[in-house]
Amino acid sequence: MQGTRLDTARIRAARRLIDPVFLDTPLYRCEALEPALGCSVSIKLETANPVRSFKGRGTEVVASLLAEHGRRAVVCASAGNLGQALAWSGRSRGLDVTVVASRSAPVAKLDRIRALGARLELVDGDFDRARERAADLARHDGIRLVEDSLDLETCEGAATIGLELVESTPPFDAVLIALGGGAMATGVGHVIKALAPGVEVICVQPVGAPAMTYSWRERRVITTESTDTIADGVAGRCPIPAVLDDLLLVADDAVLVREASIVAGMRMLLHHGGLVVEPSAALGVAAIQENRDRFAGRHVVTIVCGSNVDVDAYHRWVGATS
Amino acid sequence: MQGTRLDTARIRAARRLIDPVFLDTPLYRCEALEPALGCSVSIKLETANPVRSFKGRGTEVVASLLAEHGRRAVVCASAGNLGQALAWSGRSRGLDVTVVASRSAPVAKLDRIRALGARLELVDGDFDRARERAADLARHDGIRLVEDSLDLETCEGAATIGLELVESTPPFDAVLIALGGGAMATGVGHVIKALAPGVEVICVQPVGAPAMTYSWRERRVITTESTDTIADGVAGRCPIPAVLDDLLLVADDAVLVREASIVAGMRMLLHHGGLVVEPSAALGVAAIQENRDRFAGRHVVTIVCGSNVDVDAYHRWVGATS
Repeated sequence: MQGTRLDTARIRAARRLIDPVFLDTPLYRCEALEPALGCSVSIKLETANPVRSFKGRGTEVVASLLAEHGRRAVVCASAGNLGQALAWSGRSRGLDVTVVASRSAPVAKLDRIRALGARLELVDGDFDRARERAADLARHDGIRLVEDSLDLETCEGAATIGLELVESTPPFDAVLIALGGGAMATGVGHVIKALAPGVEVICVQPVGAPAMTYSWRERRVITTESTDTIADGVAGRCPIPAVLDDLLLVADDAVLVREASIVAGMRMLLHHGGLVVEPSAALGVAAIQENRDRFAGRHVVTIVCGSNVDVDAYHRWVGATS
Repeated sequence: MQGTRLDTARIRAARRLIDPVFLDTPLYRCEALEPALGCSVSIKLETANPVRSFKGRGTEVVASLLAEHGRRAVVCASAGNLGQALAWSGRSRGLDVTVVASRSAPVAKLDRIRALGARLELVDGDFDRARERAADLARHDGIRLVEDSLDLETCEGAATIGLELVESTPPFDAVLIALGGGAMATGVGHVIKALAPGVEVICVQPVGAPAMTYSWRERRVITTESTDTIADGVAGRCPIPAVLDDLLLVADDAVLVREASIVAGMRMLLHHGGLVVEPSAALGVAAIQENRDRFAGRHVVTIVCGSNVDVDAYHRWVGATS
C-alpha cells in the first residue's frame, strides 16, 4: 500500500494513551438482523462508554499529548460527539476545553458538552461554519485547534478500532464505515489495508451529505453548497484535501444511502439488535439494505459509532410501533 | 465468610470455558444519569453479545462441561434468556437443546430460542410450571436438566461478572443486582464478599415477584401464589433452598421496587444512557430512585443484565415522548 499519513506502529502506541474504557469494545454477530439483510452481520459497538461514541479514542490521544507537552487549552469544532469526547478527555487532564458547534446540533449532544465542563460556543450555520469559528478562536487566543480528521491523533485514535477488528475471529469480508470528515474511515481503513488487505473497506455517506464520497469518486475535492440529512454526525460540505488523499489509498468503495434507508437501519438495529443509535451509526445497515446482492452470503462488520440522539427525534424517526 | 456452594478458584477457571464474546463487558460511568439519581452510577453492560443477556456466561460453562463429558442433549426451563443462551452455547457444541417456557414469555425471547435451533416447548402457566415440565422431560428422556441458579455452573458463570467488577478501577461502594432465581446474585455476591468485602451487595426484586426477597428476610423459603410484574426475567414464585442459603451468606440487603419505578428506570436508561433494556435490567436504577438518601454521594454499580424486550411493549411502557 502506498503510504497514508498514518502509521501502524504509532496506532499501536496510541492504544496506550487511551483510557481503557474506550478500548476493546464489543464485537459480536447479530443473527437477528441477518434474515432481513441476507448476510452475516457483526456489530462493533462504540456506544457503551462515557461519551457514547467512538470519538473518545481520538480525543484521548489528543489530550494525552497536549498534557504531556504542558498545554493548558484546546478548542475544536464539533458536530457534537467530538466536543463531548474532547470535554471528557480534557477534564481529567486539567485542560480548558472550548467547543464550537452549530446551533442546530442535537440538544442532547450540546447538553452533554456543557455538563462535561467545556465552554460551548454556538454558531449560526452548519458544521463547516463552526470549523471556521474554531480556527479564528485558536488563532486569536493562541491555543491548540483540534481539527477532526486532519489531525493525525483523531485518525490514529479511531484507527485503534481497526486493530481490534483485524485481531478478531472469525475473519470477515467487509467493513462498513460511516464517512464524515474521514477520521474513522481513513483510520480503520489504514489498519485494514495494512494488516488484512483482503477485507473490503466500504465507506457510507448519506445522499444528503455526499461531499467526501463525490470527492473520492472524482479523486479531487468537491464541496457542496449545503447538506440535507438527519445524520448530523457526518454532515460536512468541505472535505479536507489531505484526508481525501488518505481515503483514496484505503477505501475500496464509497457509497451513498437514502434517508429512508438510514431510518430503516435505525429501526432494524432497535427491533433486531436492541440498540438505540444515532443516524450516522445506522449508515452501514442502510448500505446493506440498499445493496443486498453485493453482500449476499458474506460476513460484514458494521461499526455502530454513536448513540447520542435526542430521544424525541429518535421516536419520530423510528416510530412507536413496528 | 462462611462458605457458599461456590468456589472462587472454580469461578476463575470458568472464565476459560466461556466464549470471550461474553466476557470483559463494558463498565463505565454514566454521568448523564447522575443528576437525577444523586449518586455516581456505573453501568456494567451485559447486553452487547449474541444473546443480549448475561446468561451466556453460565450456559457456556454448562455446555462446555457437557460436551467434554460426551453428553448430547440438555433441557432447561427458561423465562426466555437462559433458553436463548443455552441454545446458543449448545449449538456450537452439537448439543440437542430443549427449552421449556411459559406461553406468556415475551415473543422476542421465544422467537430467538427457536431461531437458534433449540426445540421450544410452551406450557400454560408461569416459569415455575415450566420448571416442573422441564424436570419431567429430563426424567423421561434421561437427559441433563439445567436448573438455573441451583446448578453451580449457572451461578459460577454469572459470578465471572463479579471478577470483572472487583478488578475495576475506580473502586465502588455498592452493587445492585437483579434478583430472580438467584444465580447472578449469589454468583456476583460470592465474588464480592470473597474479594471486595467492603462493597455492599444489594439485591433488587419487584414488589410483584417478592418470593426470594421475603425468603431472604425471613431466612426461610417463602413461596408466593402468583407474580404480577413486567419484569418477566425475575418473576419466580418458588425459591430454591440451596440458593437461598447462599444468598443469606452474600447479600447485604434485598429490596423491593414498584412497577412504576421499574418503568421510570427503563425510561431513564433510554433518555440518559441511550440504552434499551428489559424490565429486569432496570431494577437497579429503580432501587436508587426509591432510596435516594441511602445512595447519596456513593458510587454504585448496576448490572444491566438483559435487553430482550418486545419492542411494542417497550414503547408502551416507556412512552413515545419524554
